[in-house]
This record gives sequence, C-alpha cells and structure tokens, in this order.
Amino acid sequence: MEGQRALKIEQDLLARNNRYAHINRHKFADRGLLALNLVSSPGSGKTSLLTETIELLKESIPCAVIEGDQQTTNDAERIRATGAPAIQINTGKGCHLDAHMVGHALEDLAVKNGGFLFIENVGNLVCPAEFDLGENARVVILSVTEGEDKPIKYPDIFANADLMILTKTDLLPHLDFDVEQCIDYARRIRPELKVLQLSSKTGEGMQQWTDWLKHQLSHQL
Amino acid sequence: MEGQRALKIEQDLLARNNRYAHINRHKFADRGLLALNLVSSPGSGKTSLLTETIELLKESIPCAVIEGDQQTTNDAERIRATGAPAIQINTGKGCHLDAHMVGHALEDLAVKNGGFLFIENVGNLVCPAEFDLGENARVVILSVTEGEDKPIKYPDIFANADLMILTKTDLLPHLDFDVEQCIDYARRIRPELKVLQLSSKTGEGMQQWTDWLKHQLSHQL
Ligand SMILES: Nc1nc2c(ncn2[C@@H]2O[C@H](COP(=O)(O)OP(=O)(O)OP(=O)(O)O)[C@@H](O)[C@H]2O)c(=O)[nH]1
Ligand SMILES: Nc1nc2c(ncn2[C@@H]2O[C@H](COP(=O)(O)OP(=O)(O)OP(=O)(O)O)[C@@H](O)[C@H]2O)c(=O)[nH]1
Ligand SMILES: [Mg+2]
Ligand SMILES: [Mg+2]
Ligand SMILES: [Zn+2]
Ligand SMILES: [Zn+2]
Repeated sequence: MEGQRALKIEQDLLARNNRYAHINRHKFADRGLLALNLVSSPGSGKTSLLTETIELLKESIPCAVIEGDQQTTNDAERIRATGAPAIQINTGKGCHLDAHMVGHALEDLAVKNGGFLFIENVGNLVCPAEFDLGENARVVILSVTEGEDKPIKYPDIFANADLMILTKTDLLPHLDFDVEQCIDYARRIRPELKVLQLSSKTGEGMQQWTDWLKHQLSHQL
Repeated sequence: MEGQRALKIEQDLLARNNRYAHINRHKFADRGLLALNLVSSPGSGKTSLLTETIELLKESIPCAVIEGDQQTTNDAERIRATGAPAIQINTGKGCHLDAHMVGHALEDLAVKNGGFLFIENVGNLVCPAEFDLGENARVVILSVTEGEDKPIKYPDIFANADLMILTKTDLLPHLDFDVEQCIDYARRIRPELKVLQLSSKTGEGMQQWTDWLKHQLSHQL
C-alpha cells in the first residue's frame, strides 16, 4: 500500500511539474529567450563551458544563467565574473532542479530579452531526466574522463536530450576513451542525438558549439 | 497539502529503509562480512578500483560485490571476470540503492563468510547519501578530474562518509586540481574523514587502501 501511495504522489508531483514547465515555456517565449537545460555528472565541466561560452557571445547576444546546486553560490559567482547575470538556486538535499524553482528564479533574474537563458542543473546523471523545466533544448554533457559506457548505463538522461557535448577533449591523449564507441552507445538510446566535442580549456570545438547555439536562437525568432 | 503528503511519504520510506538496513547489518555480522558502500559520481572509477582491489586480495581474503546501476550488467560482468562473485541490481529509473534491494541481492550472492562485501552504488553524488544500506563503512570516491569544490557543493554524501578516496591521481600532471584544497573542503564537512589518494591504472596508493581494508576487517572479527 505504501508503495502505491508513493507512486501516486510521484505521478502527482510530475504532473504538477509539467504544469509549471508549461508556464515557463510561455514566459521564455514571451521574452524571446532560448532556454537550455544543461545536465551532466558532477564536475563534467558545465560551469567552465558556460563561462567560456559567455565570453565568446556576450558582445553580440545577451546571456543569463540560472544555476542549480545543493549548496554554495560558487557557480553563480563564476558566471557573474563574466558580467552576465546569474541566479543561484540551492536545493539543499534536492537532487534536481524543477520547473517551479526555475519559474521563481526567472522573476529575480535581470535577463535581457532576445538571448540565451542557460540553466545549469544539479550535477546528476539520473534525477534531472524526469523534470521538464520548460526548456527549448536539453544538452547532456559528458566528460571524456567518465568512460564511454555512460549513455547505456544512465539511458534516461540521454533519451530526451537534443545535443550531447563531449568535454575535456584536451585530455584524450592521456585516456583510453573510445569516442566512436561512446557516440554509438548514445545513438542507440537517442538516434537523432547531435554530438559535439570540445575543450573549454583550449577552445577546441567551441566554434561549432556557438554556431549551433546561434542557429537554435534564429529558429526561435 | 501535497507538499506535506510528499514529506510524510518520504519520512515513511526512510524509516522503512532504516529497518531493512538494520536487518542487513545483522546479516552481514552473522556472516563475518565487512560491508562497504562505495558512492561517487558516474565514471569516477569505482568499478576499476574494485577489479584492481580484488586482484590484490583474492588469494588471501574472500571478496564479493553487489553492483547497482540504472541499466546494464556491465559492471557485474567486469567484477566476475576477476573470479569474484557479483550480483547486478538494475534500478531502472531509480537513482540509488536501498537496503531492501541489497538485502534481496545478498540472498542470491555466493559470498563466502569472513571477507569483504563491496557494494557499488549507482553513480550519484546526491541521493545515495540518504539511504543506509546496513554497511560498516561508507567510502566516497572523487576523481581528481571533477574539481576540488565537490565536497562543499555536494556536502551530504561527504558528511556521513568514513573514507574519501581521490582516484585517477595519474592524471594530476595534466590537471589544475588542488589536492590540499579538496581535502580541506572535505574536512570542513566531515572533520574525521580519512583520505587516501590512488590510481587504479598505475597501482600508486593501492597498498594503503588494502592496508586500510584489512585493518577494518580485523576490527570486525
Ligand atoms: N582539462 C580540462 N579540464 C576541464 C575542462 N573543463 C572543465 N575542466 C575542469 O573540470 C573541473 C570541473 O569543472 P566545472 O566547470 O566546475 O564542472 P561542473 O560540471 O560545472 O561541476 P558541478 O557544477 O559541480 O557539477 C574543474 O577542475 C575544471 O577546471 C576542460 O575542457 N579541460
Ligand atoms: N587515468 C585513469 N583512468 C581511470 C582510472 N580508474 C578508472 N579510470 C577510467 O575512468 C572511466 C570510468 O571508470 P569506471 O571504473 O567504469 O568508473 P565507475 O565509477 O565504476 O563508473 P559508473 O559505475 O558508471 O558510475 C573508465 O574509462 C576507466 O578506464 C585511473 O586510476 N586512472
Ligand atoms: Mg558547475
Ligand atoms: Mg561502475
Ligand atoms: Zn532524485
Ligand atoms: Zn534520488
């Protein structure tokens, strides 16, 4: 009985989240924002990617960030150091951002219309998969240090992703990471998944990423 | 009201888990097993550490493994290739092992008495923190590729750990990882935390780890 009650509550919470996600989708559209939900394991390089991306784009396109972490404001501070506005959500024990939190954060964020809203989710390759935030695109980030089998071992978060970014490619010479095998695994889970490879450290591959972003934004307008 | 119902269910589930953990604790003690719960982000090197550890210990001390992953039997197969028995739990959408699952797996595991039972949790630095499996020791594994701030950003899983292992130390020459800063952060969260540094790839630091394991086992007997 307890299991059934738990399942019913879970379904209610997901339905409630979907309603908030729907509201967010409208808010983003009203402001001409392209909203992206960045998901990955802890330490895959999400914040580093965002700071480098903002440095490349900020002269021409407004960027703003909603940061999600259990604790600290470290990531929001790193974003603000670029000059872009950022809001930090601390989830406490919570393992994922949800649409309700993101909707509230948006109200406090000094975001200009017509640009990018990056949402950096809590580092977690499992739970964020279930929670639509109202984003236009979900980007799953996998570091080449994590091993090529992650897409089949943690399939749900790859199954509804639009883009997979393999990060830290500068470390490939020191690793046994099989890029082709990883992409093959990912395409088993999500055949239409687009894949980019880059290094925030060296800048390699960043052009293709910003080109993709600009292309997505132009489709929004 | 919905939030309160959800909280009550969560408390009931944790209380239920604690009862199963208590039962597991007795089962492990009855069989003279030292049970260790290995937690980390995806791809930090848990399975690689276990296979290398088993190779070093198997001639003298029985080892068995309970593996937890959303999908695939990849990790259990890697363990069995060493000759040690392993059971794979697939959690599906589940983001952590719980004591009920582990109790069941133990019944099917061909484990000899008087040795090590390693439990490799689902790769997740958040959710496994809440779920006692009945283990004797919780080992949190952090790869030097993930960044030194993880202990303060994901504090709960470090707060009840007994040992932190920094893995992939062979990569340190290619990274900006500040080992001392990471240990300092971890000790803010858990002052009595023991720390080891090692590489499964080169074998560096593995002796101190197996010494620690043998010391823990001798206290069990
Ligand atoms: N070699 C290399 N290291 C990188 C790269 N990108 C990030 N790192 C390092 O990886 C570690 C984690 O980077 P972050 O950007 O903080 O990762 P994150 O995904 O935001 O981490 P969380 O938000 O805590 O989950 C840091 O030590 C970075 O310096 C890269 O392209 N190459
Ligand atoms: N350079 C280096 N790579 C390592 C080391 N240990 C593991 N790896 C690599 O890291 C990747 C992940 O290793 P695993 O042992 O599968 O990690 P895991 O924590 O068990 O992964 P999940 O169970 O999927 O969460 C693989 O590509 C390994 O080869 C190490 O000591 N040094
Ligand atoms: Mg970050
Ligand atoms: Mg593993
Ligand atoms: Zn969760
Ligand atoms: Zn969870």
